[in-house]
Amino acid sequence: MTVKIEDVAERAGVSVTTVSRVMNNRGAISEKTREKVMEAIHELDYHPSQIARNLFKQKSHIIGVIVPDVSHNFYGSEVKHIERNLCEAGYRLLLCNTKQQKTLEQDYIDMLQCNKVDGIIIASHTQESEAYQQLHLPLVSIDRNLGADIPVVSSNHYQGGILAAEELLRCQCKTVVQVVCDTSIPKPSDERHIAFKTRLGEAGIRCEEINIPLNTFDFDDYIKVSNTLFDTYPKVDGVFCADNIACAVLKTAVQREYAVPKQMKIVGYDGNDIAKMVTPTLTTIRQQTEIIAKTAVDILLRRVEGSEVTGTYKIPVQFVQGETTAV
Amino acid sequence: MTVKIEDVAERAGVSVTTVSRVMNNRGAISEKTREKVMEAIHELDYHPSQIARNLFKQKSHIIGVIVPDVSHNFYGSEVKHIERNLCEAGYRLLLCNTKQQKTLEQDYIDMLQCNKVDGIIIASHTQESEAYQQLHLPLVSIDRNLGADIPVVSSNHYQGGILAAEELLRCQCKTVVQVVCDTSIPKPSDERHIAFKTRLGEAGIRCEEINIPLNTFDFDDYIKVSNTLFDTYPKVDGVFCADNIACAVLKTAVQREYAVPKQMKIVGYDGNDIAKMVTPTLTTIRQQTEIIAKTAVDILLRRVEGSEVTGTYKIPVQFVQGETTAV
Repeated sequence: MTVKIEDVAERAGVSVTTVSRVMNNRGAISEKTREKVMEAIHELDYHPSQIARNLFKQKSHIIGVIVPDVSHNFYGSEVKHIERNLCEAGYRLLLCNTKQQKTLEQDYIDMLQCNKVDGIIIASHTQESEAYQQLHLPLVSIDRNLGADIPVVSSNHYQGGILAAEELLRCQCKTVVQVVCDTSIPKPSDERHIAFKTRLGEAGIRCEEINIPLNTFDFDDYIKVSNTLFDTYPKVDGVFCADNIACAVLKTAVQREYAVPKQMKIVGYDGNDIAKMVTPTLTTIRQQTEIIAKTAVDILLRRVEGSEVTGTYKIPVQFVQGETTAV
Repeated sequence: MTVKIEDVAERAGVSVTTVSRVMNNRGAISEKTREKVMEAIHELDYHPSQIARNLFKQKSHIIGVIVPDVSHNFYGSEVKHIERNLCEAGYRLLLCNTKQQKTLEQDYIDMLQCNKVDGIIIASHTQESEAYQQLHLPLVSIDRNLGADIPVVSSNHYQGGILAAEELLRCQCKTVVQVVCDTSIPKPSDERHIAFKTRLGEAGIRCEEINIPLNTFDFDDYIKVSNTLFDTYPKVDGVFCADNIACAVLKTAVQREYAVPKQMKIVGYDGNDIAKMVTPTLTTIRQQTEIIAKTAVDILLRRVEGSEVTGTYKIPVQFVQGETTAV
């Protein structure tokens, strides 16, 4: 049997309105009445329906978070930190994995709208930007450009590209290859590839590129890309790519008897635990997922509360010295 | 401006009751009226408040999922598959990371109760079982024993322990160590440690044990455990532990110049991508997270719909041959 507000009122010997006033801390209530009501709530183990209260308040205190795949270490880390920050602010996280499928993403947007979430954090998109701009919901994007009015939080990828280039220049690499994620959807992380290539070019080093589709998460695909890399550029002596791909490059290098770091250097990007787990440890550019998450939540909740926050927020990256570029 | 059901009724030239009947597919409605209402819904871009409808139905179609840390690869994989299965059944996932803190877990339980979720899947617990049994909500546990009435879904850990022991026996290991997670809270996964030790004992091989607190997720802690392992048992030639710890053992072995697999064999447990990412590739016992998740969701939704489902569900594990036990 579900306990109702009427049961609490009856037990406390007061009106329903009085119970409601106590619960919402509104109106003049004597301390004695307050105590009686709280006692009745406690004795009956009464949990007021949040749904009913939210209907009144027109707020659900639920935030939708859309990621391609929560089991990928970068998104897993983002979701963990987003949830922590939302929780501390009294909000809950409704999780959506799109697997990067267009129809699924549209289904989620419709669903979130029907459920009247208070806002959405998007770290994945395959939809046209218009779909998001028509949403009439506070939005914040992580690492995606969804339109002028939608704030974007991302790492300072330009800084990341420069740091990676300078490390490979320091190691005197001559034949450098970077693995580039599909750039057909323009996004902040493209800047790291441009900055990397430009910085090498300034130093007279040509940078070759191998392409990989956006959000490829299968390690076997990384192994295929690595094999293509070595087949196409057998003289490669410097590689820059995401950490998970770097692990595949490292593995392929061992199989093909390229000594790392002696003959070939690798700089990763992301800075998850995986960089520490492999041998030799990856040199990597660490994205501060905890600060990206906190910033995205802060901005979203300000928008939920009615502030007009827009703009682009670039969070510094960190250079982490590992063994794949030690000299 | 939010579109209301009254606006749809006005546009379609029918009563609110008729609109509601069309939306809920109830009562006799002519095809012509149905079309008029659907057209009005479409033209006005009307999204009925799910909250209002759920208040009526007394169902939120939201399921709470409690894990210690979604950024850990095992839990990330479980959450991904749970979300996929819930989504297909028309439910949404409210995510709770407890970080294994007792007060946080209690807060989440209170919060989920207030939000009237339809049920909870728990893959983490620090609370006394009574706290869960008093919940009056459909529950399913993954890998935790929460009481006789609460169904448990887990891998067949007994089978996993036997498979690991037999692989190290096949490799003729003589000094075997397993890393054991804290057993002070009894749980299904304890069986793998018991089965492993027993099977080795039957073959006349003694199994040593190194303990690690439950849900230690920091790689630096795994490195410490690995160093303790080698310091305590320098003659070790066979190790059995979770994949993430196995990566630390592998790394420490290289540093201490133990050749793997020549001098020392390692069998992991979990079977996430990490097993493929390191060199040599880990031999591991794979937990079928996709089937565990599907089973947990199926059982929970049957309970949500009122069925009395209880019992223990053991999902077979799979032996994955890697290079850390190749001979």
